[in-house]
Amino acid sequence: MADSVYKIIELVGTSSESWEKAVLNAIETAQKSLRDLRIAEVDKMDAQIEDGKIVAYRARVRLSFKYHTGDD
Amino acid sequence: MADSVYKIIELVGTSSESWEKAVLNAIETAQKSLRDLRIAEVDKMDAQIEDGKIVAYRARVRLSFKYHTGDD
Amino acid sequence: MADSVYKIIELVGTSSESWEKAVLNAIETAQKSLRDLRIAEVDKMDAQIEDGKIVAYRARVRLSFKYHTGDD
Amino acid sequence: MADSVYKIIELVGTSSESWEKAVLNAIETAQKSLRDLRIAEVDKMDAQIEDGKIVAYRARVRLSFKYHTGDD
Amino acid sequence: MADSVYKIIELVGTSSESWEKAVLNAIETAQKSLRDLRIAEVDKMDAQIEDGKIVAYRARVRLSFKYHTGDD
Amino acid sequence: MADSVYKIIELVGTSSESWEKAVLNAIETAQKSLRDLRIAEVDKMDAQIEDGKIVAYRARVRLSFKYHTGDD
Amino acid sequence: MADSVYKIIELVGTSSESWEKAVLNAIETAQKSLRDLRIAEVDKMDAQIEDGKIVAYRARVRLSFKYHTGDD
Amino acid sequence: MADSVYKIIELVGTSSESWEKAVLNAIETAQKSLRDLRIAEVDKMDAQIEDGKIVAYRARVRLSFKYHTGDD
Amino acid sequence: MADSVYKIIELVGTSSESWEKAVLNAIETAQKSLRDLRIAEVDKMDAQIEDGKIVAYRARVRLSFKYHTGDD
Amino acid sequence: MADSVYKIIELVGTSSESWEKAVLNAIETAQKSLRDLRIAEVDKMDAQIEDGKIVAYRARVRLSFKYHTGDD
Amino acid sequence: MADSVYKIIELVGTSSESWEKAVLNAIETAQKSLRDLRIAEVDKMDAQIEDGKIVAYRARVRLSFKYHTGDD
Amino acid sequence: MADSVYKIIELVGTSSESWEKAVLNAIETAQKSLRDLRIAEVDKMDAQIEDGKIVAYRARVRLSFKYHTGDD
Repeated sequence: MADSVYKIIELVGTSSESWEKAVLNAIETAQKSLRDLRIAEVDKMDAQIEDGKIVAYRARVRLSFKYHTGDD
Repeated sequence: MADSVYKIIELVGTSSESWEKAVLNAIETAQKSLRDLRIAEVDKMDAQIEDGKIVAYRARVRLSFKYHTGDD
Repeated sequence: MADSVYKIIELVGTSSESWEKAVLNAIETAQKSLRDLRIAEVDKMDAQIEDGKIVAYRARVRLSFKYHTGDD
Repeated sequence: MADSVYKIIELVGTSSESWEKAVLNAIETAQKSLRDLRIAEVDKMDAQIEDGKIVAYRARVRLSFKYHTGDD
Repeated sequence: MADSVYKIIELVGTSSESWEKAVLNAIETAQKSLRDLRIAEVDKMDAQIEDGKIVAYRARVRLSFKYHTGDD
Repeated sequence: MADSVYKIIELVGTSSESWEKAVLNAIETAQKSLRDLRIAEVDKMDAQIEDGKIVAYRARVRLSFKYHTGDD
Repeated sequence: MADSVYKIIELVGTSSESWEKAVLNAIETAQKSLRDLRIAEVDKMDAQIEDGKIVAYRARVRLSFKYHTGDD
Repeated sequence: MADSVYKIIELVGTSSESWEKAVLNAIETAQKSLRDLRIAEVDKMDAQIEDGKIVAYRARVRLSFKYHTGDD
Repeated sequence: MADSVYKIIELVGTSSESWEKAVLNAIETAQKSLRDLRIAEVDKMDAQIEDGKIVAYRARVRLSFKYHTGDD
Repeated sequence: MADSVYKIIELVGTSSESWEKAVLNAIETAQKSLRDLRIAEVDKMDAQIEDGKIVAYRARVRLSFKYHTGDD
Repeated sequence: MADSVYKIIELVGTSSESWEKAVLNAIETAQKSLRDLRIAEVDKMDAQIEDGKIVAYRARVRLSFKYHTGDD
Repeated sequence: MADSVYKIIELVGTSSESWEKAVLNAIETAQKSLRDLRIAEVDKMDAQIEDGKIVAYRARVRLSFKYHTGDD
């Protein structure tokens, strides 16, 4: 791992099913444009409620990936 | 959303099944007496263990709902 | 102040004008049903944006007031 | 403990004697109107000083109790 | 809101007038290149002082917006 | 519970399936050598990603158990 | 800026008008006895309420200034 | 103190009398098996309540002691 | 309280008896040179241990007092 | 500094030599694609260990630079 | 890395030379009795001063290593 | 250490060479006017960058020293 540089971005994934799915959505979306994803940290979980039901699970995720100069 | 006021309360939901269920229990119980629940933030998750098994999943949840003067 | 007890509640005030107004809205709404408000702490400020414009200023406020048994 | 829901409220107890007394005052006052108090967490301790003497010990306490729909 | 993904970036807006203006500058600048701004959280406020006068109000702001793969 | 002493240790459980499994792995491993586990607090959740897929769910867990002098 | 040393002090400014004024009061008072004020960080904002009205805006401010040995 | 290494463990002491006693219980228990205790930091204080009375004072304590390889 | 300015200093009081005494020592010492002490916040409590006994209780205290230009 | 806007990104620099080098690597890499770097804050330092030796020093760094619309 | 469990311990390394050396001392001492050290996080750095000179650099380090039941 | 009182001040040391030097500068400057410095805690490290090079290393340091009434 010596002497490489990683960048961390913060995403909020949402899902109508679960927080786990919300995290996976964030990762899946990110990897369409980012190579070399490495770690996903779950920072915060909340949910939107309507008529007493959860309509959206949300997970704030910090994703680190290899930093290639030029792609920021 | 202009010029309305929300109140935040903190509940601890428990479940014998999962943390997700514990959160849902908290929301379900709250909405029996509170109208207009809006957001549930998961603050903390822990579990009670007996004989090496989890007997209760607990989730500390912050619930925000529309504040109607008089219902506090 | 000796030997009295205060309760702290957490409100989110909103305003279409400013964060200061959002705090005042929270206080004004609270005092309709609560006597003896004493301190308002500003915990967090954010804003909702639509079409690049702030449509709602929001302030999370912790309000302390004299605790009268029975009014919780 | 399975599948019950607890509510957490935040009180500031004061006492002219000690922080320990301030916590006890908060608990004592709370239990006049709340059943099933369970845990009291001490969040913060400060003191008011007049003429170089402490005139009020204050303790910010988080109290959890069984949540009965309707009593919020 | 189901199953969409948001990105959060952190900006420091400055203004010679007020913190409120500093936040608005950050939002205004961001929306020149970002679509679908949604929330601006104020993280920190400080000020630069010269000759005992505030010469720059600064606000650290976290902006969330819809994440379109490719624009990171 | 009077006058007993508990010790808290911090473990990182991993699982290829889910965070819930990762927590259970930590508990299961701990109880092979520790008696009287009582509480497991989830401190942090992250995930290792390879080729855009989660290959390891990790959960940092704080476990408390009865402290028997000699077993530290 | 090389090799100079700054000191940070913490003040609470108050104002009957606004938090912005409260910060300015703190700066104004500080600069009567301190040279070379450089940065003012706003740490906390609260307000005292009487009869449902804000009677004092308070801002906790951290002020950094050049440290001249002897003036502490 | 040069070039020695200390280990920090986290204990929860309990007492039916006071938080001060709870801390002392933790220290007393720890020193049966650990040599060279040096510092005890009080991290958190809470209490268990039954029938409106405190039945157990609990103090979370971080204890540092000289680290002798082999005794972990 | 309008438009006055307070300064906050941080002291560590010690005592061979108790944390409460340690706080009082800090206040007592401070008021020899400072007028108008107002609030003492307890920030942190720890203890020095020798031969398994507490030899010094220490309390980190934040003291606020009226700020008179010239006395910093 | 009036009325400009800065962006903050978070990088993890690594080095086989020291944390200082790890920070410098992050800065050096960033400036290949970013103009007007201004401040680097060190957020976190850790190290990877293999066979009891540090094989990689890592530093999490927050870098602020002038925000030019279009380069995000 | 799937399905293994790690333990985290907290050590304070000291050195008369530098913080970097203090961290290395902690690692070196730990690996005499622990196998499979993996990560060392630097949590806090301070220094003891005597006669205006640093006599001991101290680093609080969190070390994670593979958890083998029985070695706690 | 019984019954003495310590004061904590916060300084920002700067250096063109390293963070370690920046801390030493803060200590060195402080001891010109303060007797009995005891502990220096490193709170924060950042750096100023110009033309892609670090021109000033800055370390925020909390220094505790014996409190002699009158010298505040």
